[in-house]
Amino acid sequence: MQFLFLGDIVGERGMELVSEYLPRLKHDFKPQVTIVNGENVTKTGRGISHKLFKQLMTAGADVVTLGNHAWNNAEIFDFIADTPQLVRPLNYPGDQVPGKGYSILNVNGVQVAVVNLQGRVFMELTDDPFRSLDKLLQEPQLQAVSVIFVDVHAETTSEKKALALYFDGRVTAMIGTHTHVQTTDAQILPRGTAFLTDAGMTGPAEGVIGMTYESVINKFLTARPTRFAVQQAGSGVVSGCLVSVDAKTGLAKRIRPLLISKEHPYQTL
Amino acid sequence: MQFLFLGDIVGERGMELVSEYLPRLKHDFKPQVTIVNGENVTKTGRGISHKLFKQLMTAGADVVTLGNHAWNNAEIFDFIADTPQLVRPLNYPGDQVPGKGYSILNVNGVQVAVVNLQGRVFMELTDDPFRSLDKLLQEPQLQAVSVIFVDVHAETTSEKKALALYFDGRVTAMIGTHTHVQTTDAQILPRGTAFLTDAGMTGPAEGVIGMTYESVINKFLTARPTRFAVQQAGSGVVSGCLVSVDAKTGLAKRIRPLLISKEHPYQTL
Amino acid sequence: MQFLFLGDIVGERGMELVSEYLPRLKHDFKPQVTIVNGENVTKTGRGISHKLFKQLMTAGADVVTLGNHAWNNAEIFDFIADTPQLVRPLNYPGDQVPGKGYSILNVNGVQVAVVNLQGRVFMELTDDPFRSLDKLLQEPQLQAVSVIFVDVHAETTSEKKALALYFDGRVTAMIGTHTHVQTTDAQILPRGTAFLTDAGMTGPAEGVIGMTYESVINKFLTARPTRFAVQQAGSGVVSGCLVSVDAKTGLAKRIRPLLISKEHPYQTL
Amino acid sequence: MQFLFLGDIVGERGMELVSEYLPRLKHDFKPQVTIVNGENVTKTGRGISHKLFKQLMTAGADVVTLGNHAWNNAEIFDFIADTPQLVRPLNYPGDQVPGKGYSILNVNGVQVAVVNLQGRVFMELTDDPFRSLDKLLQEPQLQAVSVIFVDVHAETTSEKKALALYFDGRVTAMIGTHTHVQTTDAQILPRGTAFLTDAGMTGPAEGVIGMTYESVINKFLTARPTRFAVQQAGSGVVSGCLVSVDAKTGLAKRIRPLLISKEHPYQTL
Ligand SMILES: [Fe+2]
Ligand SMILES: [Fe+2]
Ligand SMILES: [Fe+2]
Ligand SMILES: [Fe+2]
Ligand SMILES: [Fe+2]
Ligand SMILES: [Fe+2]
Ligand SMILES: [Fe+2]
Ligand SMILES: [Fe+2]
Repeated sequence: MQFLFLGDIVGERGMELVSEYLPRLKHDFKPQVTIVNGENVTKTGRGISHKLFKQLMTAGADVVTLGNHAWNNAEIFDFIADTPQLVRPLNYPGDQVPGKGYSILNVNGVQVAVVNLQGRVFMELTDDPFRSLDKLLQEPQLQAVSVIFVDVHAETTSEKKALALYFDGRVTAMIGTHTHVQTTDAQILPRGTAFLTDAGMTGPAEGVIGMTYESVINKFLTARPTRFAVQQAGSGVVSGCLVSVDAKTGLAKRIRPLLISKEHPYQTL
Repeated sequence: MQFLFLGDIVGERGMELVSEYLPRLKHDFKPQVTIVNGENVTKTGRGISHKLFKQLMTAGADVVTLGNHAWNNAEIFDFIADTPQLVRPLNYPGDQVPGKGYSILNVNGVQVAVVNLQGRVFMELTDDPFRSLDKLLQEPQLQAVSVIFVDVHAETTSEKKALALYFDGRVTAMIGTHTHVQTTDAQILPRGTAFLTDAGMTGPAEGVIGMTYESVINKFLTARPTRFAVQQAGSGVVSGCLVSVDAKTGLAKRIRPLLISKEHPYQTL
Repeated sequence: MQFLFLGDIVGERGMELVSEYLPRLKHDFKPQVTIVNGENVTKTGRGISHKLFKQLMTAGADVVTLGNHAWNNAEIFDFIADTPQLVRPLNYPGDQVPGKGYSILNVNGVQVAVVNLQGRVFMELTDDPFRSLDKLLQEPQLQAVSVIFVDVHAETTSEKKALALYFDGRVTAMIGTHTHVQTTDAQILPRGTAFLTDAGMTGPAEGVIGMTYESVINKFLTARPTRFAVQQAGSGVVSGCLVSVDAKTGLAKRIRPLLISKEHPYQTL
Repeated sequence: MQFLFLGDIVGERGMELVSEYLPRLKHDFKPQVTIVNGENVTKTGRGISHKLFKQLMTAGADVVTLGNHAWNNAEIFDFIADTPQLVRPLNYPGDQVPGKGYSILNVNGVQVAVVNLQGRVFMELTDDPFRSLDKLLQEPQLQAVSVIFVDVHAETTSEKKALALYFDGRVTAMIGTHTHVQTTDAQILPRGTAFLTDAGMTGPAEGVIGMTYESVINKFLTARPTRFAVQQAGSGVVSGCLVSVDAKTGLAKRIRPLLISKEHPYQTL
């Protein structure tokens, strides 16, 4: 079983790149499950709308994961409860968090869970991601699940690697998002979990991790409040990975990074 | 002119990998200048000693850069003042910081500066890296310099990219360190500066960014004080990059990441 | 010479309390200089407007200081340049910060400087407050100044005390703001500087440091984005201090905290 | 029923002040329960030893609370499990935290619980203090308890006030520690809980919150690793509060800050 994952899709440019490349990637790699991170798809790069969620599904996504920007477009509160394919981070605190932190799919008879997990180091004060996922793995609804794909949305390399080793052999894949820059450490951990510190983003390659240089530099140089603007011009980047899974063991067989950019044209995949 | 750079060398394993691979890399790629980041070379992974500095030079380094761990082994205060090839971050505050934030080499008649610059986001409260390097670039001793190689030691992808774009065309290369995981975004920026968000580390590949899983997980699970132990066992990783420079313009012609690991054997370089 | 200072004035309630109590305080204590912190005077508790600035002056302020919220109401950019009695933190970075970090008054022939200084620990990445004020004290326009009153806007008790001891004997008073809760450590430091870790706020006493409990608790319980609302109902608090100064030496003779609240009626001052 | 509380006791000086003033305070105010915060009692100001714990009990404490420095002297792991009168923060994560987060005393037939709770803002990544105490309050062993005294060890004024209002009417007192500087906001909240943002410290009054100016200023001026030294010389401060409790309702009747220092001699209490 093959999983296709695309990291944080940023702004209009990110949405265009998904429309342009996702069908082609699906055609060429024939994934059974396609997951994309949609925490930055609005024009402001913050949050998601119902319309954009549907566009992602139409373009070929089966599940959309989120991250710390999940809640920035308040429209999400209107539709996440009725949208099981939209997954917010599992470990936001309390019993009343809108939506769910995982989605269960039946893929040709195999039960597949897609989980979104958020780190805490230099981030919001959510619940402990180690124990939150520990707990989920013991819940009844996960017992029939064979394959567990985790989008781990976190800032530091150490927290992501620690989480991956902690869950090694217990989840199928642990793929990082949030830094918007892909790392080169795609690997199968000793007990069979696929890991990548960060899948990277899908959106405008120029500017600063999806935002215009002008808006970001202003923040760094003045320390004053700044409204970041999404980068529009210039070349784009599509980042993600492919994970090959043994559906019987629920472990990963192979992980392969995906990167399409000016420096890495589609043909080189 | 070719530059070879290796990212954060971690512990005894990192030192062994340098001894094993640096001569081979120099033989094969024939760099005119070799720079390595030595902020983590001691057995504890924190700081540097005079003996280890000399070992790095013997193994083939021309300049050793540092980072936020520069000061963790107090022995550095005894020798950094007399060791111009050991460069600490430029932007530690005050007039009395031991050592220097840059080193100037004469490479076949070309003046080359190697700078170490530290980020501030989620890090120590040092001086502003943007303005500190701005100021250095205007100092008289830099006026005869043609090529400027910057090791930018910082946590976040956004601060590193913002710094690189701010100095694009004014420095030759801006190569990130500190996260210990290499990124895939090696690129020549619009005005000619080579950029890579993080070069990655050189040291034990298993464990968590150079430290044992057991020590790191303990910190994450207990929130109590923990002494991290450097990973000894398992496979290693050598991470860095090669930058080809036009010595006349001082701009980069090409940047090529270097990665040697279990998944990426030397032969695939 | 007597100085009257009121800490962070919050929202409409804070403005009403200033109108109600400032004339009375001035009548009773007859300060030569009255300084109030206006970083939270708008209805949202963020920033200041020209109208509100004028209201503060009308109510009896001679100088209005600010803090990290200085820039939250963008209207400030329209009038701060022409308003020398409105002082923003000295150590915002760069040559082009609107307004000034100090104001110089002639008080019956005595030159008095009022400075606003911002801490960095757990705050914005401004310039080093130690060296920024060091530098200001050496500037020519400060040389004729006898009395220097500093509003030090910072989060931690340690940074404020360290700053006060660093400048002890070199400034007249170092009065903390930003935490919105008054401390009991008003004191004259060994070399003559008056110090108080925090003067406390002037505004709604109920709620959470000026904001409604409902809005703040939501942030703590959900870790999701929250818009804080200024507290309207309930009793109010007026917090500040009186500093008696020897205009000849520029040192403080006495510091006396001011607190008016339900538990501490005006009569007990 | 009267409670006497002393905030963070710092170093040898703090221990001396406890020996000198605690018997006198107990004689004069006749508290039924005496609680002191002992997270800083060692010579380094970090953690506690068995010997020092016993000294605190001999001097008159009934319960010793802690904070984020609880674990800094590793000796604690040897005796906390057998020392129910030593209470570490309730919300350290996991099932295997040594010691307990509360202590239950029988005071003339009244069941009294003393709880230590730690904040998270700008602190260690412990469990959510709101939900941790919520959960404790529902545990069977708390059901016979009439009076609940909470030492809330946290950095920011907002987190402490939010916690106090959240538990208002459900606990008897919520007294802040950690900043080492006493605040002036002692109050009975609307539903009967006594609150004080910070009780302040007991120890050397000069220096920076218990540490020498020389060691602390070095950190601020250099951004390099620094070992803080406990202040020995100079005058001392004893800080805390008295809370009068209605044992039947479990609510507070009165809270009265305690402060003994050079500026506030014992006689003025
Ligand atoms: Fe993102
Ligand atoms: Fe994110
Ligand atoms: Fe490092
Ligand atoms: Fe580092
Ligand atoms: Fe404020
Ligand atoms: Fe503030
Ligand atoms: Fe403490
Ligand atoms: Fe503490």
